[in-house]
Amino acid sequence: MKRRDFVKSVGAGILASSAVTAALPQNSFGADKKVRWRMVTSWPPGFPILQTGAEELAKRVGELTQGRFTIQVFAGGELVPPLGVFDAVSQGTVQCGHSASYYWAGKSPAVQWFTSVPFGLNAQGMNAWLYYGGGLKLWEEVYSSFGLVPRPAGNTGVQMGGWFNKEINTLSDFKGLKMRIPGLGGKVVKKAGGTVVLLPAGEIYTSLERGVIDATEWVGPYHDLRMGFQRVAKFYYGPGWHEPGSVLELIINKKAYEALPAEFKAALDAAAAETNVKMLAEFEQKNSKALSLLETDGNIKLKIFPDQVMIGLRKLAKEVLSQEASKDPMAAKVHKSFKEFKTRLNKWSILSEKAYYTTVAG
Amino acid sequence: MKRRDFVKSVGAGILASSAVTAALPQNSFGADKKVRWRMVTSWPPGFPILQTGAEELAKRVGELTQGRFTIQVFAGGELVPPLGVFDAVSQGTVQCGHSASYYWAGKSPAVQWFTSVPFGLNAQGMNAWLYYGGGLKLWEEVYSSFGLVPRPAGNTGVQMGGWFNKEINTLSDFKGLKMRIPGLGGKVVKKAGGTVVLLPAGEIYTSLERGVIDATEWVGPYHDLRMGFQRVAKFYYGPGWHEPGSVLELIINKKAYEALPAEFKAALDAAAAETNVKMLAEFEQKNSKALSLLETDGNIKLKIFPDQVMIGLRKLAKEVLSQEASKDPMAAKVHKSFKEFKTRLNKWSILSEKAYYTTVAG
Repeated sequence: MKRRDFVKSVGAGILASSAVTAALPQNSFGADKKVRWRMVTSWPPGFPILQTGAEELAKRVGELTQGRFTIQVFAGGELVPPLGVFDAVSQGTVQCGHSASYYWAGKSPAVQWFTSVPFGLNAQGMNAWLYYGGGLKLWEEVYSSFGLVPRPAGNTGVQMGGWFNKEINTLSDFKGLKMRIPGLGGKVVKKAGGTVVLLPAGEIYTSLERGVIDATEWVGPYHDLRMGFQRVAKFYYGPGWHEPGSVLELIINKKAYEALPAEFKAALDAAAAETNVKMLAEFEQKNSKALSLLETDGNIKLKIFPDQVMIGLRKLAKEVLSQEASKDPMAAKVHKSFKEFKTRLNKWSILSEKAYYTTVAG
Repeated sequence: MKRRDFVKSVGAGILASSAVTAALPQNSFGADKKVRWRMVTSWPPGFPILQTGAEELAKRVGELTQGRFTIQVFAGGELVPPLGVFDAVSQGTVQCGHSASYYWAGKSPAVQWFTSVPFGLNAQGMNAWLYYGGGLKLWEEVYSSFGLVPRPAGNTGVQMGGWFNKEINTLSDFKGLKMRIPGLGGKVVKKAGGTVVLLPAGEIYTSLERGVIDATEWVGPYHDLRMGFQRVAKFYYGPGWHEPGSVLELIINKKAYEALPAEFKAALDAAAAETNVKMLAEFEQKNSKALSLLETDGNIKLKIFPDQVMIGLRKLAKEVLSQEASKDPMAAKVHKSFKEFKTRLNKWSILSEKAYYTTVAG
């Protein structure tokens, strides 16, 4: 590289991050700059789509930077516990993580809206809200106070409503139902009279088999098939009203992010966006294949929750969300933005996506 | 960074691109390599979302490469005509373009499936088919014989069905209807007894106003509002059965692509994927806002095509697609892949996205 070009190209990087670079030793971001990061995730080692997707994201950053910016990925438990991601990244133990913001509801109730809320938006809606409806700006605002920067980096699509050992015909069928369902979905089920049971992944199958629980939600056909639930439950219900489009996050230490030269920031951002669209595509492909297997494999019945059940659950979800929103001003602000965006988008969806699924797709 | 880490991280980058670098003169792609490309598009200068999106894509490539790989963007007509993109890129006049593959149906009928076909997949389905269902591999196969490489780089989402000056209650209401609707959608309308009129964008408004045509499709609420159709048509019908999720393309000269160092290829690919997800998000946001304006602004009626009309149109669309698929073996192969994927995905969508829109979103 010629001396003149060198100065020019470095200049571009410095402009974007001048506040930070001013405080750093000169030349620290030249063409020879090497950055080595570590990423911790909330997923088991080799966990398909989520852990493999996080690894793809890291690989892409390396490819984009000709190996000058590398990210070593650690699955949940390898370096910090699966739910230790937020603290590890916030405290700077590692520079970034791949997880889901709703795990950090204990830090700030507002974060729950950035993954998925009961009767919330699906993947397409979440992307529209986050990228163009002010959602990501709010997320950045919430995370900023913890020294963090968030990026959408994957989506599960509409999840399934769960495995049940009895039919759900009315809302009262939730009364006394022992169901494994964490988070806000669990709060809704509890309001409906259910008993919410929290279990680690490894104990769900046997608990369902032995009748310790009557029902469980997990993810979708692809991951559920791997758990073998089709062998110990009779009814498989859709849709996942409690998680209609869960956003996965790239969670980044803010100081580490701001210290990056502009092109490494761009590499992280572009790789996150690419992972966002491709992970959802992978979910859709694998879920559709797994559903065919489930149908031919087990003695299960695929069901859709009756309208009256959904109307009842939606009413309870509204109450749960209002309660969460009242916990602090930031949660209230995020809830308001989300609700207004969703109301407007729904009107458009009636003519577009809803009409597509009801009159075009079939 | 320690010397040991330096060697490790550079090693990772070199491994990924060894096949390419081995065949090229030494040092031709060193850190000082500058690449300057030109992109031509099919969109008018400044055309929102599409032209601006193509410009964002080019900008992102520059950011990712610290300005070492720049792409100058020319709108339709600035360097070559809007529909001259394919030839200009194929012949190497420019290195890349932003357009839609179905414009090139005259080159190869198979390309139509890579944008959108009547009663085909929506955006989420197209991404799943292209990235994980073999669609992009087929697209690469078709384009390869023209010296081209394709990448999905944007999506319109479900378009609108069009503006009409009379109600559409039965399929026979298309009889004698003079409608501006190009492509395969036009062939379907013709089969339904309509008269298909092709008009340049600038003549649609006055033709509709003067009754030269009875109906026109365009894009969606945001772009349609800018055309002012709400002032000269009574009924605005959804959904856009003829284009339920049109994929925009980054079309690249194959020789130019293959001559790129690995990290510049990665920059193009990642920027295209990022544009793919963000453009759809922008469409959703802007369409939902524009719909509210249209509703309060004009004296128009928002309508959804009746089920019986859609069933009739779907049957005709099936015939049109079979005819297109029979034109050459490659079209038949693409049609088969698309159909099989769609059939499987639909089964999954009934429990997930369709159930979301009918029982969760509202």
